[in-house]
Amino acid sequence: MSDKAIETIEDGSITSTPGFEAAGVSCGLKVEDELDLALIHAEEPCSNAAVFTTNAFKAAPVLYDQRILAENPGGLRAVVINSGCANACTGERGMRDAEATAARAAQMLDITPDEVMVMSTGVIGEFLPMEKLLPGVGEAAKALSPEVEVGHAAARAIMTTDTRPKERAARVTMEQGTCTIAGMVKGSGMIHPNMATMLSLLTTDAPITPELAQAALEEVVERSFHCITVDGDTSTNDTLLLMANGQAQMPIIAERDSAAYRNFVKGLSAVAVDLAKDVIRDAEGATHFIEIAVHGAPTPDEAKCAAMSVATSSLFKAAIYGEDANWGRIICAVGYSDVEIDPDRVSVWLGDLQLVRDGAPYHIDEERASALLGREEVSITVDLGLGDAQATVWTSDLTHEYVTINAHYRT
Amino acid sequence: MSDKAIETIEDGSITSTPGFEAAGVSCGLKVEDELDLALIHAEEPCSNAAVFTTNAFKAAPVLYDQRILAENPGGLRAVVINSGCANACTGERGMRDAEATAARAAQMLDITPDEVMVMSTGVIGEFLPMEKLLPGVGEAAKALSPEVEVGHAAARAIMTTDTRPKERAARVTMEQGTCTIAGMVKGSGMIHPNMATMLSLLTTDAPITPELAQAALEEVVERSFHCITVDGDTSTNDTLLLMANGQAQMPIIAERDSAAYRNFVKGLSAVAVDLAKDVIRDAEGATHFIEIAVHGAPTPDEAKCAAMSVATSSLFKAAIYGEDANWGRIICAVGYSDVEIDPDRVSVWLGDLQLVRDGAPYHIDEERASALLGREEVSITVDLGLGDAQATVWTSDLTHEYVTINAHYRT
Repeated sequence: MSDKAIETIEDGSITSTPGFEAAGVSCGLKVEDELDLALIHAEEPCSNAAVFTTNAFKAAPVLYDQRILAENPGGLRAVVINSGCANACTGERGMRDAEATAARAAQMLDITPDEVMVMSTGVIGEFLPMEKLLPGVGEAAKALSPEVEVGHAAARAIMTTDTRPKERAARVTMEQGTCTIAGMVKGSGMIHPNMATMLSLLTTDAPITPELAQAALEEVVERSFHCITVDGDTSTNDTLLLMANGQAQMPIIAERDSAAYRNFVKGLSAVAVDLAKDVIRDAEGATHFIEIAVHGAPTPDEAKCAAMSVATSSLFKAAIYGEDANWGRIICAVGYSDVEIDPDRVSVWLGDLQLVRDGAPYHIDEERASALLGREEVSITVDLGLGDAQATVWTSDLTHEYVTINAHYRT
Repeated sequence: MSDKAIETIEDGSITSTPGFEAAGVSCGLKVEDELDLALIHAEEPCSNAAVFTTNAFKAAPVLYDQRILAENPGGLRAVVINSGCANACTGERGMRDAEATAARAAQMLDITPDEVMVMSTGVIGEFLPMEKLLPGVGEAAKALSPEVEVGHAAARAIMTTDTRPKERAARVTMEQGTCTIAGMVKGSGMIHPNMATMLSLLTTDAPITPELAQAALEEVVERSFHCITVDGDTSTNDTLLLMANGQAQMPIIAERDSAAYRNFVKGLSAVAVDLAKDVIRDAEGATHFIEIAVHGAPTPDEAKCAAMSVATSSLFKAAIYGEDANWGRIICAVGYSDVEIDPDRVSVWLGDLQLVRDGAPYHIDEERASALLGREEVSITVDLGLGDAQATVWTSDLTHEYVTINAHYRT
């Protein structure tokens, strides 16, 4: 399949996929009548697949969704997502609130509660204000629509410190037929692999078994959401959910070693990588989008480990904010990663400008370095000189605004 | 031995230990005639012991010192320490510069080069300006003095972004006799365990074999410098060096299971812990000194791992800066540490104010929480409820000033 077979849908939303409708409403969970509740509904039962946070403190909606995924992997119909309150560290009452939310949506949509998943994002340790949330679910059910604009409202309703909604959609054409993949994501802080994004929902009309939907999602998350970091903090609520309603005119994808499965993964990956990069572009307080590629590693895991060590270095991230070509901090972060390296073989580039050659400083054109760092998108390449494996990760810079946002989040 | 046997020497310096002299001079490595070169000289050959950075990119002075330590563990006479330039990532020329520095000091002091160690701190990737450094070594050799004030000048000469010199000294009395332990440290950024501090020198007149000096230092570093973090970055130059000249009137400490060894370790630990905490008190841009104690862990390693996970969380550190009792971020960081925990057993305190009980929020007195967070020293206690092991670590908050300092360090 050529990359031309993946065609971006401009201004798409979660409802760009045929067979899905959505709503975004305000029910008073956030201040000032902001949108704070999204409902997504599928006409037909969906193969669902999900990846959840690895944090030991899993929020009630995560625990609830894990149960639904195990009990009803091929029958998902709806998802309720609220912002403003994470329903995390809320014990049994939090679990009852998650169940009640799903039950209300099921009642409104005339389906069963085990066909509904829930997600929450916001402050940890506060109970959901059910007296506001339940009427909001009712209102959202009445507002459901397949319009693209309504999908935009849903994407807006799941935002917390995000400054803009993040949505992507693509049409994937393969020999077997054409399907659509659409997604939205929220998240701009507490972002780190193994639950890289707080909440993301993907829809597709590709016909695919629940098992292969799960396999595809796990494959794709490794090269998209697990390749981004804002602050190294892994949230309690992170959830990535894929809903596949099977309405596209093509044979069901049921074999892992089929061309159709590979093509579907390629398309899913394209949408997921774009969404993951959108998270970094909207990272809390960020002024630079930073791509870090590590080449010449013995294995892909080691390449990613070295890249992530740079991507999580506060000193490196502060230097990029200051537009200072402080390559010493890149070298330093590679050096303390768990990857075994040979210092004398390491080279570093800023864009196409070499900074380090064989572990020692290269004649650095500071003027050109400044110009490259003055751009919004900064690219760092590290060659370990040890093998053929590579990995690319994305992060943001550490700024005054990041500190401002996070010093007073609750208050 | 009661703790009374460890008596703090007020206003002490590295020369508080009998038999050591020092100098701190300015030779133009830093701007504006600031002190930038320290020389420490022992009248008698010393048992030396050292712990170095685990970073794969070891600076030239680290590689040089590792060689000296291996070749001449019982014969150290002098240490040259410069600030302003780290002599890291400088290849063969950097190694030649380190050797030339030691050789010049040896020549001035009429000793051999393998009796001299060197340390450097400052910008990575620049060559030492030897035309300034070598005359500086000569000047320092002439200025050597056992006066406490000169020790203060040496502590000042090794500072980079430090705002104040950090020195500690104590007199340790045991059955076998009395000895002195004194130390100085520099470091306020790029601070993280394995090795936590960029440069630290300890002197003692306790008679101790090189083997036991090394054992004592490795034991002590685990509960002092390896328990602090500013920004999670491990530098290329970190060096902790102990010089023991054996001049105290007591039998030589040569048995690991002796009371004398245990008492010496206690005294060394007291000085090292105070110095480590001094680093955090002077952490780059810090407004709070934060102690994090984890109790109820299955093992001490797990306690330290959970505590360090909180101590390195940018979100937690930003919340303390904002004086926001955001316990959700503490819970979250404990939850994503590598320690297996039972969420329903975790409790959290701010000072003596309980915030979380059995994994759920406790009725929080926000007013009292604000008052506690308004203090400069903040104490967090986490009880995992799983065992008897505990660990304590120290860190600083993440502030606007930290970002300012590190955005433009080189420029």
